[in-house]
Amino acid sequence: MHITDILKNPNDFKFIGKLWLYGKDDRFFGPGRVELLELIDQTGSINKAAKIMEMSYKKAWEMVNSMNSQTNKPMVITHTGGKAGGGAEITAEAREVITFFKALHQRFQAYLESETKNMIAFGNKK
Amino acid sequence: MHITDILKNPNDFKFIGKLWLYGKDDRFFGPGRVELLELIDQTGSINKAAKIMEMSYKKAWEMVNSMNSQTNKPMVITHTGGKAGGGAEITAEAREVITFFKALHQRFQAYLESETKNMIAFGNKK
Repeated sequence: MHITDILKNPNDFKFIGKLWLYGKDDRFFGPGRVELLELIDQTGSINKAAKIMEMSYKKAWEMVNSMNSQTNKPMVITHTGGKAGGGAEITAEAREVITFFKALHQRFQAYLESETKNMIAFGNKK
Repeated sequence: MHITDILKNPNDFKFIGKLWLYGKDDRFFGPGRVELLELIDQTGSINKAAKIMEMSYKKAWEMVNSMNSQTNKPMVITHTGGKAGGGAEITAEAREVITFFKALHQRFQAYLESETKNMIAFGNKK
């Protein structure tokens, strides 16, 4: 007995997964943080980015602090005061981490697709 | 610039991930369902299993129904009434799916370790 004998319409099934990069004591990076950084980049504001993600400002700040505390140079820089009432920008380091993570994510998707394909192929071969 | 130049103590970092098997319209299987099935097997009861997982009985039932509705034969069989006041058991199909998923999970862990190793090795090589 193989899983493809057990499932109704086994060809409709697929593996889905999520990946995160963890430091010793804390999550460092993952899909949520990619989104947060990209929204900070687009809006110039942690607050605006948090709102779009329907996340509290506190939570967004904690994510930024968590990242900044685990890197040699900050991933997000904030500016206080001024006409625009402060703001935030992401650094070259943040862009590099995003690029790295997206490439990893693509390899991971290929891995998941190959696991799905192998499962279905095994069922069809019998 | 590589991610290992950006991270403090890059050797302490690692990838962590989660995998699920999805049908067309619904999740079919994942780490939570492995645990639920194994606890039903150990306790003979969906209710007891749910309590151990600190999950509502309703939620556990929904997970069981979701699995049972996506397979040709049920993954969990319930018995009503009798001296023991009913009970539940997992089927050979459930055991097969658990075995399949655990083997997949092992391959996935190896995949994650190789991604971690490649990241660190790239940093050390420079």
